[in-house]
Amino acid sequence: MPTTVTDQTVIQRLPAALEKKKFLKKSFKGLDYCHAIDDWQHIPRGTTVFNDQVIFGYPHIGRVLALEAGLRAHFQAPFWVEEKINGFNVRIVRIENQIVALTRGGFVCPFTTDRLPDLMPLAIFQHQPEIVVCAEVAGPDNPYLESHPPFVETDVQLFIFDLMRVGKPAFVPYQDKLSLLEKYALPSVPRFGRFEINSAEKIRKLIIELHHQWHEGIVFKEDSERDHRAKYVTGNSNIDDIRAAADNMMELPPEYFTNRLLRLALFLEENGLTASPVMKQELGAAFLEGLHRAVEHYRQEHRVYTTFRCRFRNKENAELMLNHLKQASRHIKIVQRGLKMEGKHWLLEFDRIYPHLTGMLGDLLSGRMIFD
Amino acid sequence: MPTTVTDQTVIQRLPAALEKKKFLKKSFKGLDYCHAIDDWQHIPRGTTVFNDQVIFGYPHIGRVLALEAGLRAHFQAPFWVEEKINGFNVRIVRIENQIVALTRGGFVCPFTTDRLPDLMPLAIFQHQPEIVVCAEVAGPDNPYLESHPPFVETDVQLFIFDLMRVGKPAFVPYQDKLSLLEKYALPSVPRFGRFEINSAEKIRKLIIELHHQWHEGIVFKEDSERDHRAKYVTGNSNIDDIRAAADNMMELPPEYFTNRLLRLALFLEENGLTASPVMKQELGAAFLEGLHRAVEHYRQEHRVYTTFRCRFRNKENAELMLNHLKQASRHIKIVQRGLKMEGKHWLLEFDRIYPHLTGMLGDLLSGRMIFD
Repeated sequence: MPTTVTDQTVIQRLPAALEKKKFLKKSFKGLDYCHAIDDWQHIPRGTTVFNDQVIFGYPHIGRVLALEAGLRAHFQAPFWVEEKINGFNVRIVRIENQIVALTRGGFVCPFTTDRLPDLMPLAIFQHQPEIVVCAEVAGPDNPYLESHPPFVETDVQLFIFDLMRVGKPAFVPYQDKLSLLEKYALPSVPRFGRFEINSAEKIRKLIIELHHQWHEGIVFKEDSERDHRAKYVTGNSNIDDIRAAADNMMELPPEYFTNRLLRLALFLEENGLTASPVMKQELGAAFLEGLHRAVEHYRQEHRVYTTFRCRFRNKENAELMLNHLKQASRHIKIVQRGLKMEGKHWLLEFDRIYPHLTGMLGDLLSGRMIFD
Repeated sequence: MPTTVTDQTVIQRLPAALEKKKFLKKSFKGLDYCHAIDDWQHIPRGTTVFNDQVIFGYPHIGRVLALEAGLRAHFQAPFWVEEKINGFNVRIVRIENQIVALTRGGFVCPFTTDRLPDLMPLAIFQHQPEIVVCAEVAGPDNPYLESHPPFVETDVQLFIFDLMRVGKPAFVPYQDKLSLLEKYALPSVPRFGRFEINSAEKIRKLIIELHHQWHEGIVFKEDSERDHRAKYVTGNSNIDDIRAAADNMMELPPEYFTNRLLRLALFLEENGLTASPVMKQELGAAFLEGLHRAVEHYRQEHRVYTTFRCRFRNKENAELMLNHLKQASRHIKIVQRGLKMEGKHWLLEFDRIYPHLTGMLGDLLSGRMIFD
């Protein structure tokens, strides 16, 4: 739920927050800003301040693992259902004459900022300079994530799910959002309409369809003053997550896998699906194929890595992106593979090198004996 | 490798060890003893002392995850290869006129002790009262483990892999072991013979066969004074382990699963096997079927559990076994289901109730929202 803190409170608390390292100072091409790296005193993580303009962080949305019980427990009024897209969250805002995209953590994303003219019409920022566009950026060619929705086959696309306003933590009301999306021909997440609380069966039909299409899931948004929200994901989205993380296994908190396996089992059980032979095979493959690739990489190059690629309009932004990733990755090493023109864009390719699995495979393949 | 500490040293250090709680005092039907619950001052965990008789703990055997590199790195002379059986480790010894089986931890196992006359000829303990028989007890009906070898279809069987002597940490030499096993018609683990260090290809053939038969693996024992050892398991044994642990997922260290997945991937890669569709399906099923059973159990009985069954000759031993499990299980709750005569035996049935997964499912199925 959006915080009740005002932008004036954020501005007042900023010096103390900087002192306590709850906010950090950053700069993007001469644009100075501060961003909240943690939730602190009701200021959400990802809140960004440019001079006196406060862009509130996108609030956490809780996840339910049981559809029917979850709806009963948390909703008091009918709700809107929208598709949840498997990408990364950005807030897009105009600061003076520049339009920038902020990551969930409140950092100016050089990649999304660079590609904005390719991703959405920008007129809304001329007519409504206070607007904050909340969207998911998803696709195979992105600098952050190994997984992507099946319906974005190349590059990335942008899907808007909320609008906010500079200085305000609340979302623009649902009907106003729809009008603005339509007026400015903005790309939206798929919307499935308004449902009654007791329509779990209809929603079940919808989620099973999304599951079979390997889509990620849905978000519920209560049609009420409090605008209460929850998310619910498909069984197959868990297999996607496992597949994306298998070669990166040793860098992740170990609950990453057990949580997703439990979500998958609960999804199947509640929705009356049995684990088909095909699904079991997909799950086994999700674990084994990434690990197999990791061992092959180690044998050939003595390191375990994943190669990422993404396109930029402007070469400097590619370099800023790479520098940002290098600074932000504490354990994982980022190494550029190439940066060259391809069509109208600069194509950046880089590797994320996973040090734990690299080290373990080095030990184990040299015959090290372990005592367990 | 066996410790170099003598039995006299153990006896001398025992008062200090008891003081420091490195050894604990126990009693089994009037037979008093102390056992080492940790490795301490070169005394191995599981060392048990009855008055002045010291039974040394069974030493740790290191695991290699790369066959060829492992053999090259650790062996200096030809070695014997024996099958590794998926069960629990016991040392069987005569104390005065009683023959008892000690667990790996050095506790008198009421189950194995009770069943010894069914499991092996006992004449060796009359003729060689100092002998310590080291064996694996394996089968579906055992009080400790959910998994078992495919070739033990009911109850349990005993497989001997080493002999020791009371008061001595070393193993009886290999040829002497063979003679004694033969002389007393003792059940042995399958033995595959003596191999040269450079015979990795022959061993690979053997391990692939064991893998396809869902056997656990092999142990290497160097034919030399130092009697150096290592173990190497099949790919499929990892799937077995995952299957046995899936409904118990939240009680285990999370590396349990990632370690086994990595071992499986390394096994396949090194042995030139690709993950077949059938194997992927088996792996997916190993995770999902246990979790599915857990959710079903929770829905029906509001608890997640596994039912164990095992047979006793003597009713009192069944009760001692159950009491031991209740005392030894810190988190997991042990609840008796039944104890009744079946044929010549008392059949004990009990549940292990897994509190973490029970609690999580209670929360999640009631619709609890989680923020991750």
